[in-house]
Amino acid sequence: MIDLRSDTVTRPTLEMRQAAFDVEVGDDVFGEDPSVLKLEETAARMLGKEAALFVTSGTQGNQIAALTHCNPGDEVLLEASAHLFLYEGASMSALAGVQPRTIEGYRGSMIPEDVRTAIRPDDIHFPETGLICIENTHNKAGGAIVPLEDMQAIYEIARENQIPVHLDGARLFNASVASGVSVEHYAAQADTVQFCLSKGLGAPVGSIITGSAEFIRKARKWRKRLGGGLRQVGVIAEPGYIALTQMVDRLADDHENARLLAESLEQIPGLSIEGHVETNIVLVHIGELTMSAEEFLEELKQVGVLAVPFGPKTIRFVTHLDVTRKEIYDVVDRINKVIR
Amino acid sequence: MIDLRSDTVTRPTLEMRQAAFDVEVGDDVFGEDPSVLKLEETAARMLGKEAALFVTSGTQGNQIAALTHCNPGDEVLLEASAHLFLYEGASMSALAGVQPRTIEGYRGSMIPEDVRTAIRPDDIHFPETGLICIENTHNKAGGAIVPLEDMQAIYEIARENQIPVHLDGARLFNASVASGVSVEHYAAQADTVQFCLSKGLGAPVGSIITGSAEFIRKARKWRKRLGGGLRQVGVIAEPGYIALTQMVDRLADDHENARLLAESLEQIPGLSIEGHVETNIVLVHIGELTMSAEEFLEELKQVGVLAVPFGPKTIRFVTHLDVTRKEIYDVVDRINKVIR
Amino acid sequence: MIDLRSDTVTRPTLEMRQAAFDVEVGDDVFGEDPSVLKLEETAARMLGKEAALFVTSGTQGNQIAALTHCNPGDEVLLEASAHLFLYEGASMSALAGVQPRTIEGYRGSMIPEDVRTAIRPDDIHFPETGLICIENTHNKAGGAIVPLEDMQAIYEIARENQIPVHLDGARLFNASVASGVSVEHYAAQADTVQFCLSKGLGAPVGSIITGSAEFIRKARKWRKRLGGGLRQVGVIAEPGYIALTQMVDRLADDHENARLLAESLEQIPGLSIEGHVETNIVLVHIGELTMSAEEFLEELKQVGVLAVPFGPKTIRFVTHLDVTRKEIYDVVDRINKVIR
Amino acid sequence: MIDLRSDTVTRPTLEMRQAAFDVEVGDDVFGEDPSVLKLEETAARMLGKEAALFVTSGTQGNQIAALTHCNPGDEVLLEASAHLFLYEGASMSALAGVQPRTIEGYRGSMIPEDVRTAIRPDDIHFPETGLICIENTHNKAGGAIVPLEDMQAIYEIARENQIPVHLDGARLFNASVASGVSVEHYAAQADTVQFCLSKGLGAPVGSIITGSAEFIRKARKWRKRLGGGLRQVGVIAEPGYIALTQMVDRLADDHENARLLAESLEQIPGLSIEGHVETNIVLVHIGELTMSAEEFLEELKQVGVLAVPFGPKTIRFVTHLDVTRKEIYDVVDRINKVIR
Repeated sequence: MIDLRSDTVTRPTLEMRQAAFDVEVGDDVFGEDPSVLKLEETAARMLGKEAALFVTSGTQGNQIAALTHCNPGDEVLLEASAHLFLYEGASMSALAGVQPRTIEGYRGSMIPEDVRTAIRPDDIHFPETGLICIENTHNKAGGAIVPLEDMQAIYEIARENQIPVHLDGARLFNASVASGVSVEHYAAQADTVQFCLSKGLGAPVGSIITGSAEFIRKARKWRKRLGGGLRQVGVIAEPGYIALTQMVDRLADDHENARLLAESLEQIPGLSIEGHVETNIVLVHIGELTMSAEEFLEELKQVGVLAVPFGPKTIRFVTHLDVTRKEIYDVVDRINKVIR
Repeated sequence: MIDLRSDTVTRPTLEMRQAAFDVEVGDDVFGEDPSVLKLEETAARMLGKEAALFVTSGTQGNQIAALTHCNPGDEVLLEASAHLFLYEGASMSALAGVQPRTIEGYRGSMIPEDVRTAIRPDDIHFPETGLICIENTHNKAGGAIVPLEDMQAIYEIARENQIPVHLDGARLFNASVASGVSVEHYAAQADTVQFCLSKGLGAPVGSIITGSAEFIRKARKWRKRLGGGLRQVGVIAEPGYIALTQMVDRLADDHENARLLAESLEQIPGLSIEGHVETNIVLVHIGELTMSAEEFLEELKQVGVLAVPFGPKTIRFVTHLDVTRKEIYDVVDRINKVIR
Repeated sequence: MIDLRSDTVTRPTLEMRQAAFDVEVGDDVFGEDPSVLKLEETAARMLGKEAALFVTSGTQGNQIAALTHCNPGDEVLLEASAHLFLYEGASMSALAGVQPRTIEGYRGSMIPEDVRTAIRPDDIHFPETGLICIENTHNKAGGAIVPLEDMQAIYEIARENQIPVHLDGARLFNASVASGVSVEHYAAQADTVQFCLSKGLGAPVGSIITGSAEFIRKARKWRKRLGGGLRQVGVIAEPGYIALTQMVDRLADDHENARLLAESLEQIPGLSIEGHVETNIVLVHIGELTMSAEEFLEELKQVGVLAVPFGPKTIRFVTHLDVTRKEIYDVVDRINKVIR
Repeated sequence: MIDLRSDTVTRPTLEMRQAAFDVEVGDDVFGEDPSVLKLEETAARMLGKEAALFVTSGTQGNQIAALTHCNPGDEVLLEASAHLFLYEGASMSALAGVQPRTIEGYRGSMIPEDVRTAIRPDDIHFPETGLICIENTHNKAGGAIVPLEDMQAIYEIARENQIPVHLDGARLFNASVASGVSVEHYAAQADTVQFCLSKGLGAPVGSIITGSAEFIRKARKWRKRLGGGLRQVGVIAEPGYIALTQMVDRLADDHENARLLAESLEQIPGLSIEGHVETNIVLVHIGELTMSAEEFLEELKQVGVLAVPFGPKTIRFVTHLDVTRKEIYDVVDRINKVIR
């Protein structure tokens, strides 16, 4: 099986396993786990923020951002196909009591003026605009990179209106490696940033949320309320540290593999690439085939290729650590076989 | 001053005042106010539902619908410029913990197939679709009537998916009078219906929510939690009863006045009507004027006409009980003066 | 029927009805109802606060206090049998997301040192103490007056810890009339105060919440979210104004009647008074009778007396505007008959 | 340093580390991590429930229970010093919108009749009683065991009233080992049970919640909303499996050590044991010393002993996997030195 369903399926490397075996741990609820402290400090420094907090998932990081930044009855602006809106079980409304207001973007990027227009004026009928969220790279838009200039323009609008900005950077390192813009530059366009250790970076579990020291102090209590306060967290934080410090550059390989996959699939009659490939995600449109996405995926499974549906006629493939260039060639061969 | 800001500004009629003066009251928390019981029974019967509940506002009725129909973490489908989404302070998310998902409509009507597509399949990442809301007439769409067929098609989709439908019928009687479709017919396309006694119908305060007896039983407790459980409510319920039983037919006058206003304003250079007038709301576009909506309204105020902005270059005028045909002519004259 | 179930059953006086008939009204959502503005200004001045807000019930006033003062995850300290804890449908937790922490009081008064002890220190495991609530007079404690000194001591502790204090003064005017302490003095021991126009003061509907101008500004939006933003509210605000300005002194009659009732009932074998009567509530213990409270109430109903159960062997009688001294004698006679 | 602050400070054993090193992992969001599936199946079977779910902490398990069992506005009955009430940041109210109602217990056990009395009758003013929680062993009561008979009596009352029961069994295995009652027997007195792998059982991270298949299906979505849906969770689930299958019997050693510690400390002038020691927690009262708990702990720290304050004059010591009998003797010696 070649598994291209998500970069979340990566298995910890031998080095990560060894690190987890050797790690000196403590009880992080007492603030005594050395690995997680090291990881949090490193993450904060890399993103140019005062402080950071280890959380068990990107969803947890995003939810903590909503809980910490907002009051119930606030409105949150975000792109219409943001992960936070589509794939987190309406948690933002369930837990933080905030209303999402979506803005249709272009390849995952909201037009800054649309953001400005959507900010609520002061009126008894209106919620207050309590948060603006940006997702970079943007999953549903096929791993598209939100341009730094767009982020800058939105952040400027946000500051004028004293509204915090949260960056859902689950795959921020992919954006950085592909664009050459440092994560610190991206992070400077937001008050808080969440990024995942467990996707392209290959850690088994975990994400980081960064922001001001005051924000992280409050976020820590919300993490506890969500049940995300862990004990000997070093056993996952130490692999996370390796992910953060040693696995970033190799994301370029995933991007190269994604491009290769896209170029090869584009040659296959009946398939076309949606948008274009900027990072490690390839969206393939099968509009000319008679099969539905589900049926096509079933066929792929028969020949040992896994991917996920991303619409009635769209398939998402994600390249990652556990997929080699050789396997990409294999995938193309097998898909060719299915189509014929 | 001729006040066309909203049909909410109507003052109680002499008959309503007299009824309030004479009314026999009781403590409705003990279920002993005869007026409110009569009003609720009448409302339920007129809408063809098992039961009804008096609430202090349309917002309260809509919020109680969300609280009673949904679980926290559910998603609510509604048109992109629905009152419930734009003008109720994100209350649905703050109180009921549900996430609105908006669907761009045409003149306030969602395309039924868009509703079907937006219903969430069963997946760990997704909220459940817990409610579909329809607003008829649709305020932001300029008092547009949502066609009965659209409501039928949506209700069918909803039932297939076992999702309740709530009708925000704040101005449902306007839709009925203008279209000739009975309120009962409209109400049959929804599980619960809220309508206002205090807009075109002229009551000083209050709305009604109707639905099954079981729904109303639960709604009653949510009303209490919101602080909407009143005591000698007859002093407002009795005027509401007059509004419901005697003031419906005269809505035709408001519609006639609105049409007259629209036709007259359309003759004025620089002004155009947005969409077309179906009920008692007129949206005027001032795109060709150099003024903003706010500035234009300020000028109108100087000549004794009140209206509200509905966009940077859009003005909303609403006709109602306290505006005569003669005053409509006056309004047109005064606006003509301002423009010249 | 002589109805001693609650002082909420009072019917509006002729003068209130006349005032409602004559009142000039406006749309309060636009801030244009003159009666409610007058009522709010008068209430604020009488309680020595910057601003006030008309709400439709005591529950709504209390809930708005919790929503405005607190953040979700806060803890609220209040007496173990407070109305806010026992009789408001857990609304404080449902709407504001706060956790009540109850303190066993003596006749409704919390011991100040118990309040101090219950304030949470700073710790990741603990909620923040976000509000302290006091109820005066205390319904469940039989209309007991919380002494001013206790309120002062608690307020001092609250200020040391920067925790706001809310006074549930549904029957605060009863406390004031009975104790001779002005409502302003009581109100000075709290940041916000809610009191009812519709209990002993006789208005058909409504309560007031007072506090700082900034608090009321926020409270106004929460009222809108709860659906408590009304239109031509003058029809109930004007009777409320009469209640507030003309009906306070006569509470002394209710207190006198309550004392008379208590003294008379105490003579009846098998009955005893719980605690002692300070205001308009009488708690009668029927421990020596073989009947349950429910059965006893059924017997009373047969002879034309209404009251409510307040425990398995406890009955609550409340005196009010619509009960005369003559009727109190009648009640005693009828109860005597039932007992014999 | 001898660390008796909590049994949460235990470090993973060599065997656990080796298991984490060797473990075959998968993506649990796709349901493909073999370790966590094995752990969940084993846990469910041991507790006699249909299904189980791995969560990252006891708090997360308890919160998911509240979110899954209850509706907002429900009331939850629990003992007055329950962990869920005191130490979880009011999360139950913040997230699930439920109101705790506390019942004063004896050594952590609620008297069944008190539970029955606290169940709310049907009334518009009352919340519904949505959940009853029991904590066994009871942390704040010094590791006291709630007797099986009490649990049985409460469960019977609960079923009569159709109210679910949740067992916070963070230290349930301690109760079982000490009492000889199987965990399955305890679990049979509740609909859902949470227990920790990370306290006395020694796993680095994690807890389990068990219940019906239907409950766990819903709980899984709430876990996702809280951000507790993990990826290659095997790296912590496999140590958890060892904890659950190999570390239970050795809890007897901790209990023996706790008894030894208590008996020895009781000999020291100025110290007394609060209650009596049933499991692995020792509460020491220092009432006769002139020091506060904080000061005494500071002295202990100087001589290499760590514990936590549990009141102004109370210290909690917890024995666990990483404390040997020899170290208990050392602790006693060092405390003796401090006292003298």
